[in-house]
Amino acid sequence: MKHSYLNNLPLDEAIRRYETHLKAVGFAGSAETVRVTDACGRILKSAAYAQICAPHYNASAMDGVAVQAARTFGASERTPVTLLPSDYTVVDTGDPIPEGCDAVIMVEDLIEAGDDRLQILSAAYPWQNVRQVGEDLCMGDMIAPSGTLLTPALCGALLAGGITEIEVYKQPTVGVIPTGDEIVAPTSNPGKGEIIEFNSTVFKGMLAGYGAQTKVYPITRDKKEEIRAAVETALRDCDIVLVSAGSSAGRDDYTSEIIDALGTVLVHGIAIKPGKPAVLGEACGKPVVGMPGYPVSAIVIMEEIVSRLVAMYFGVPALRRETVRATLTKKIVSSLKYTEYVRVSLGRIGGRLSAAPLSRGAGVITSFTKADGLLVVAQNCEGIEAGEEVEIRLQRPLSEIENTLIVTGSHDPLIDEAADFLARRGAPFRVCSTHVGSMGAIYAVRDGLAHMGGIHLLDTETGEYNRPYIEKYIPDGHAVAVKGVGRTQGLMVQKGNPHGIQTFADLRRVRYVNRQRGAGTRILCDYLLKQNGIAPDEIDGYRNEEFTHTAVAALIAAGNADAGLGIYSAAKMYDLDFIPICKETYEFLVDKQYLDDPMIQAFFDVLRSAEFQARLQELGGYTED
Amino acid sequence: MKHSYLNNLPLDEAIRRYETHLKAVGFAGSAETVRVTDACGRILKSAAYAQICAPHYNASAMDGVAVQAARTFGASERTPVTLLPSDYTVVDTGDPIPEGCDAVIMVEDLIEAGDDRLQILSAAYPWQNVRQVGEDLCMGDMIAPSGTLLTPALCGALLAGGITEIEVYKQPTVGVIPTGDEIVAPTSNPGKGEIIEFNSTVFKGMLAGYGAQTKVYPITRDKKEEIRAAVETALRDCDIVLVSAGSSAGRDDYTSEIIDALGTVLVHGIAIKPGKPAVLGEACGKPVVGMPGYPVSAIVIMEEIVSRLVAMYFGVPALRRETVRATLTKKIVSSLKYTEYVRVSLGRIGGRLSAAPLSRGAGVITSFTKADGLLVVAQNCEGIEAGEEVEIRLQRPLSEIENTLIVTGSHDPLIDEAADFLARRGAPFRVCSTHVGSMGAIYAVRDGLAHMGGIHLLDTETGEYNRPYIEKYIPDGHAVAVKGVGRTQGLMVQKGNPHGIQTFADLRRVRYVNRQRGAGTRILCDYLLKQNGIAPDEIDGYRNEEFTHTAVAALIAAGNADAGLGIYSAAKMYDLDFIPICKETYEFLVDKQYLDDPMIQAFFDVLRSAEFQARLQELGGYTED
Repeated sequence: MKHSYLNNLPLDEAIRRYETHLKAVGFAGSAETVRVTDACGRILKSAAYAQICAPHYNASAMDGVAVQAARTFGASERTPVTLLPSDYTVVDTGDPIPEGCDAVIMVEDLIEAGDDRLQILSAAYPWQNVRQVGEDLCMGDMIAPSGTLLTPALCGALLAGGITEIEVYKQPTVGVIPTGDEIVAPTSNPGKGEIIEFNSTVFKGMLAGYGAQTKVYPITRDKKEEIRAAVETALRDCDIVLVSAGSSAGRDDYTSEIIDALGTVLVHGIAIKPGKPAVLGEACGKPVVGMPGYPVSAIVIMEEIVSRLVAMYFGVPALRRETVRATLTKKIVSSLKYTEYVRVSLGRIGGRLSAAPLSRGAGVITSFTKADGLLVVAQNCEGIEAGEEVEIRLQRPLSEIENTLIVTGSHDPLIDEAADFLARRGAPFRVCSTHVGSMGAIYAVRDGLAHMGGIHLLDTETGEYNRPYIEKYIPDGHAVAVKGVGRTQGLMVQKGNPHGIQTFADLRRVRYVNRQRGAGTRILCDYLLKQNGIAPDEIDGYRNEEFTHTAVAALIAAGNADAGLGIYSAAKMYDLDFIPICKETYEFLVDKQYLDDPMIQAFFDVLRSAEFQARLQELGGYTED
Repeated sequence: MKHSYLNNLPLDEAIRRYETHLKAVGFAGSAETVRVTDACGRILKSAAYAQICAPHYNASAMDGVAVQAARTFGASERTPVTLLPSDYTVVDTGDPIPEGCDAVIMVEDLIEAGDDRLQILSAAYPWQNVRQVGEDLCMGDMIAPSGTLLTPALCGALLAGGITEIEVYKQPTVGVIPTGDEIVAPTSNPGKGEIIEFNSTVFKGMLAGYGAQTKVYPITRDKKEEIRAAVETALRDCDIVLVSAGSSAGRDDYTSEIIDALGTVLVHGIAIKPGKPAVLGEACGKPVVGMPGYPVSAIVIMEEIVSRLVAMYFGVPALRRETVRATLTKKIVSSLKYTEYVRVSLGRIGGRLSAAPLSRGAGVITSFTKADGLLVVAQNCEGIEAGEEVEIRLQRPLSEIENTLIVTGSHDPLIDEAADFLARRGAPFRVCSTHVGSMGAIYAVRDGLAHMGGIHLLDTETGEYNRPYIEKYIPDGHAVAVKGVGRTQGLMVQKGNPHGIQTFADLRRVRYVNRQRGAGTRILCDYLLKQNGIAPDEIDGYRNEEFTHTAVAALIAAGNADAGLGIYSAAKMYDLDFIPICKETYEFLVDKQYLDDPMIQAFFDVLRSAEFQARLQELGGYTED
């Protein structure tokens, strides 16, 4: 088991080293000539100058008549001037001003005086209502400097300036070579040990955003010679080459060796997390990057390294994501060994923008689909306290983030379903839901970090749901519980109940999967354990914690555990057997000041609708209260 | 000359009326199934649920060995546990965890103990270094609701969830019919009275940004039957139809009549400026919009109306541009008859974001190419005072605006040339230059509205340039003049000097074109008039004011005037004769606090470079000082 050395270069130093080398070997984009009508989104190779004036002749700015201004002098309400047919020419907007004329009188200001004569009540001044030559653009004026991204309006200005073809940078082609014996093309039915190759699709989408095209090569096995041949092919066809996975130092990780054989490895290992095992290399004057296999790591390398390569190709400044300042909701601990990229969700609640850290697993692509922004924690920083103001790089337009209903609390699929109903009704906002358990909902609503959250908290002394908790934790009464649904909780077990589980006490015999602390279902579990006189330590897997009902169901279906507590709809989805335990009251805790908010009202409108109730019946295990 | 009635509906009411009608006739997008690998940028037709878990099997998260955690209990530095070959399986990252194992020990934590035995110094806990089934996505979880824009990461998540094909909205096809007898296809050599058709290119670019495709039809003459036939064709081929120009009420404006014949005109005339003469209609269940001919008016209708039609098609909320608050630099007067869209340039100077209004001419496409944002002045607002804070809709990323060197003052082509040199050197900022004359530079730098500005202000009493003005207007000395160039000013006259102009006194005999008040060249003109004993009223065209040297040259070349004062390079560009008058000192007034700013330093580095001096020689009429 070979374990080769990786360096751990600070990101800035890695970029500096890489850019310096690429400049030295002459890496830069080439040009092509395109029609301006097709040039939108392209980048100018050199400055564009107007070839003609716009307008290129004196044009009428109105519908009316062209005259010589001097012929109208003295006209007033008391002393109208009459224009003979020989004094004027009828012009429409855009018509040339005839020789000898230098003004246009609007049709609205003309009085017909018979025999094609016209009367006017005020004098025209020279060049009135005339778009003089060059009003918009003068021949020789620079329309845009080198490196300008051609917007729709700029393409219009180029055409107005008489430019029909223009030299722009070619769109670089980025070759992506997926590698790995375990990697398979996208499928809905992968075998055990087969990993669906989706990073190339993520890269293709990101590269399109950077202005580059992508050529995805077939999946290459973990054979050095095969990968090397694929890299050589890609170097012939493409401007930049990405070798997907195989950038670490494991036994099958050949990327670094191959680049070394074909060219130069500048950097192997960057002090960032995720993203550390990247290889930055060059061969044939072209960048070759060994991408980490984990999707989140790869996305960080795309943003920090590959976007720069495309910018270098175009000779434009590196991509800058918009940033925003927000208050961190939860303490972050960070290593001094790495610059860390923490995905956050953002929410504007009552004027304050909050950033809530998401999962930090490098393998969790959904942490990026949910991310509204990235918090970059500097290498020399050990952590950031909750409540501190931090700078966030936006991954989503701020206007979208600001129009978001934040639902934080107990997991139930019905929240996603309601979000979908709202979207289909054309609601002008989106719903962002995070699963932090019922106690999480109480804290989030108490602290102004969410508009609302789902709760189902059993007060074990009274048997009552929710109210006792709200009174205890939000004594000032600024939040209220709004009717949600009734749900059936029970034990999920494998199909056919192979372990013959009948009661909660039977859990002593099997492997259990638990919910996280603070979850309403966890509180129910602890209550049931106590009621049955079972100590937590007697339960195998008590410390195995999951965040959602579906995650618990998935582990039971996969055989990682034999039983778990959860709602009926999750058991049904995974075709598990279900032993009902109790019916509970799932409500929404809402900050009172938002009860009239149109977003909240639209949410509950959906919840109360007949169509939504029908959907709940389909999911199963719900009652109206 | 027919002049039909236009209504003047407030924008909100026009939108409401149009959307209500389109909903009633069932205008909505249809769906198509695409491969997820090609779905980036598309919009989900309905909610997407994970079909499988991700990972779909228990996968090693590390390179190392898979073991049963129970087998390692008790291992510590003092009591190492030795694993026999039968106790472990070597696994790479991503490999399935073999039956009976539930943990992975990292390769770094293994000590080889001979005979394939391994020693470990700490116990493994269950599921350590294992990506359990569903860690990222659980089968049945909603990955994204209806109407979601598919980002690269979302496409990755869909593939990870076992989805290979997905139903998305078709991209609507928007048919664009350019009309008008005066309209010609893009050319570098249009004849008099021929207007280059560029609006369709602007539309195509904007529509791509909205997610729609564009089909541009051939230019149609101003014949009602021809335009009607083109609209009927487009209604068959497309989802939305735009008739470009012909939306006003002039004699050739048939759009409204044609829509009325084929369907329904909902709105003709909106109380917005520019953009008023739009026609909002429907035929065959599809929107048909009569677009104003002026490009700026048309762009406003694209943003306010057409973008909504595309959003309606996708069933998503209307486009929202990001907004920012900025301080208005100049008073705006606005009509109570219209909501007005004022293009502004934005600049961050010393922490404050300022918005400077640009040209308000509807025909000036360059006012949109230069615009960083739009200020929407409400219909019930008569104007906004300088210094007020206003909300600006961004037309350009804020990060780009914030990294901009603001040069406001006297016009000289060398500023654009320097901007181009900077771009070619890969400067990480752009240059925004506006032409407000030398006095404008003094006010802008004095008031913190620009980093610097070009000045060439002759003190007529001492003959000295610039210093006396700076001392007078910026007595606190917070700005200094930095060496620029020497320039030759003179009279530009038509080629061959047909009017035989020799001295300034000869201007009495010809049509003059002047520069605007506050321009250094205007001050020079006034000085020369005085010196020659000429009263301004004696000069025909003294009130004819232009903002740049090239604009003056263009009007002389076009024959709109016979002479004008300006710099040699402008005369040379237009092949005019030039009668030198004086050499002047063109300097840059710079706020002292920015003298060390890397942007300013890079600017002067360019100015002092040999390549730039060579470029100035090409332009002509410059000396080093």
